[in-house]
Amino acid sequence: MKVAVIGLGLIGGSLALDIKKAFPTCQVVGLDNNKQNVSKALELGIIEAETLFEDLNSADVVIVSIPVNSAMDLIPKVLDVINETAVVIDVGSTKSPVCNVVKQHKNRRQFLATHPIAGTEFSGPDAALLGLFKNKTNIICDVEKTAPQLQKRALKIFEAIGMNLRYMNPEAHDKHIAYVSHLSHISSFMLGKTVLEKEKNERDIFDMAGSGFASTVRLAKSSPKMWTPIFQQNKTNVIETLEEYINNLNHFKTLLQNDDFEGVFKEMEDTNYIKQVLKGIY
Amino acid sequence: MKVAVIGLGLIGGSLALDIKKAFPTCQVVGLDNNKQNVSKALELGIIEAETLFEDLNSADVVIVSIPVNSAMDLIPKVLDVINETAVVIDVGSTKSPVCNVVKQHKNRRQFLATHPIAGTEFSGPDAALLGLFKNKTNIICDVEKTAPQLQKRALKIFEAIGMNLRYMNPEAHDKHIAYVSHLSHISSFMLGKTVLEKEKNERDIFDMAGSGFASTVRLAKSSPKMWTPIFQQNKTNVIETLEEYINNLNHFKTLLQNDDFEGVFKEMEDTNYIKQVLKGIY
Repeated sequence: MKVAVIGLGLIGGSLALDIKKAFPTCQVVGLDNNKQNVSKALELGIIEAETLFEDLNSADVVIVSIPVNSAMDLIPKVLDVINETAVVIDVGSTKSPVCNVVKQHKNRRQFLATHPIAGTEFSGPDAALLGLFKNKTNIICDVEKTAPQLQKRALKIFEAIGMNLRYMNPEAHDKHIAYVSHLSHISSFMLGKTVLEKEKNERDIFDMAGSGFASTVRLAKSSPKMWTPIFQQNKTNVIETLEEYINNLNHFKTLLQNDDFEGVFKEMEDTNYIKQVLKGIY
Repeated sequence: MKVAVIGLGLIGGSLALDIKKAFPTCQVVGLDNNKQNVSKALELGIIEAETLFEDLNSADVVIVSIPVNSAMDLIPKVLDVINETAVVIDVGSTKSPVCNVVKQHKNRRQFLATHPIAGTEFSGPDAALLGLFKNKTNIICDVEKTAPQLQKRALKIFEAIGMNLRYMNPEAHDKHIAYVSHLSHISSFMLGKTVLEKEKNERDIFDMAGSGFASTVRLAKSSPKMWTPIFQQNKTNVIETLEEYINNLNHFKTLLQNDDFEGVFKEMEDTNYIKQVLKGIY
């Protein structure tokens, strides 16, 4: 089996490492717009060779792991050039736009839309981690639109690297992921911004920061190049979650202003239920 | 040296463990309103004996590690009963109210206000951790109001358990900690609330949650009993941080609504500076 990974960042690089480990005889090659990423991926043993776009037709599996705006342009082109038995797998964080863009493509049945929910706040081939996907969820969208034997090949890969598969339509994916992922990123970025603005005037407040702040602000280290197109593509859902979040914050502020500390207590006590919810996950 | 710990939860329990390790000949005793906490602390070896409030006069060091509202009531009473060479150390998360309440106490010079910035989202003696305070910051307030030999005794303990000391007035502490700690808790609780509300209508969105959500929502597991009085005592500062945070979120929402994705990119790029800031800490 020959796997070509387009985009050798955190996700593409980690997939390359895990696939090579799960399938030792597999040939894993890669390509990236950024030549430094290619050199780094070769140096770190993430891929065994660079591949050219023109040579993608020799691959059995092509994984596209690039920012979601670029994926919209590139995936139809990849579907144009691959050989007729290959499968193209998208792993981006939004699913409706990419599923729409390939809808009428003559090779639609060679495409599988997935979202492996794994990652860190870091990016680039240096951030690639062996085992990143173990016990994580992969959301598979519109699976019935992919040819059965190609579904099988793709899903075998994700199962082999330890992922739990879940099936969903792209619209449901985009709506739900706005809550459990996109909103977290905005809450974290804006928390970081609020504290950085304060720091400008009040020096040295950061050595007062504990592990709680570090945890809530961790996602504010994420790549704007990756996240801007995600917010753009999922704008409607993201705005909806953001409005609900802002309403909840305003309500909490009102409770404080009204000295309603029973209300404040109850808000937190009710939300403690998150412990049960996360128990099975983290 | 005999150390009495009042409040055998996460912080009190962890202090007891660390002090015993740093000073093996020290006798560490404890008391807690909740008798189950006392039994648990004895069972886990956190304290070697229970002490009665009436016997606190035999202690050289009394550490008060209880919710900040209860501390306001209890600390003046502790200062009433201790022997004249003992030091009483408060370790709560707000500092102005407790410093004000002891201001006129005849034994004010036997009191030291501190805030060891360490913890987890868990509570109770089961949550106590040996080494919790290593390389963490302890904010010492109004140090000059404590008798020099008692300052020395108290600070020697914090240094011995690995803490970095920083001096600050109580008002500055409360203002700054609102940004780097109290706001993080509210942002996390309200994120948890927003997603839980959604979950009520849309089943099973939590198995789509990744490590990013787990990280930003971690503090929503915190104890309402501990946090309600903190928000109450630091209300003015907390409301100020909350207003700035909500303004930043509204601004981000407006950028999305206006399709100003260059603006969205810039917001995130600027906030990425948090990487440099946190590098030295976490």
